[in-house]
Amino acid sequence: MLGRVNHVAIAVPDLAAATAAYRDQLGASVSQPQPLPEHGVTVVFVGLPNAKVELLEPLGEGSPIAAFLTKNPDGGMHHICYEVDDILAARDHLVASGARVLGNGEPKIGAHGKSVLFLHPKDFFGTLIELEQL
Amino acid sequence: MLGRVNHVAIAVPDLAAATAAYRDQLGASVSQPQPLPEHGVTVVFVGLPNAKVELLEPLGEGSPIAAFLTKNPDGGMHHICYEVDDILAARDHLVASGARVLGNGEPKIGAHGKSVLFLHPKDFFGTLIELEQL
Repeated sequence: MLGRVNHVAIAVPDLAAATAAYRDQLGASVSQPQPLPEHGVTVVFVGLPNAKVELLEPLGEGSPIAAFLTKNPDGGMHHICYEVDDILAARDHLVASGARVLGNGEPKIGAHGKSVLFLHPKDFFGTLIELEQL
Repeated sequence: MLGRVNHVAIAVPDLAAATAAYRDQLGASVSQPQPLPEHGVTVVFVGLPNAKVELLEPLGEGSPIAAFLTKNPDGGMHHICYEVDDILAARDHLVASGARVLGNGEPKIGAHGKSVLFLHPKDFFGTLIELEQL
């Protein structure tokens, strides 16, 4: 069911400083910051040969990463996103196995314009897992 | 400088249960557990097309992931490992930029038999970064 690792998302309190660190200290190529108000974050994509790292900073009220940054003021790895061939079949299999899908259980349109859903981290050993329709 | 994402390491309190969840609920292929006493962990490799996820459980006294699990009893994403062409050049560049390398600053032989070093998470927005010589 799980396909490629699409991205690892890292929440940071200061996107400009984090972008500079990934660019200048770690020597990675970084995108311009992209505000995604409908997702409550501004994102910078760190380009790597086989996967993306996404640096996320809260944007606006009620950002989905605000609570995480309150708990982890320095920032930290927020979630990992895997691609799946069939997100509805994946969802149904997971729910039948007892896993909880966040929200109302229906996929939403994610930051890449594809259907996504998030699984409850308590069901996966403290890791917030995003599934994205391929 | 940063190359491919080599793996994302996830610390878990119960490796057998986590392995079953990744295999049965998430439908991933998982390895047999591999005890690495010299690294203080038992690891299960989750095989994905473009990168590895490594499930880590503490092994023996003084495991390097014990403190993390005390702080995060459910488990969680512990570190991300990037490949680099030249780990000494990367280390020197990072140190010159003000970043701190954990331990004595010299690469060690990591769990894959290659030279690795870890960067202080306080210098990278709460993310523990491992660099592995390609």
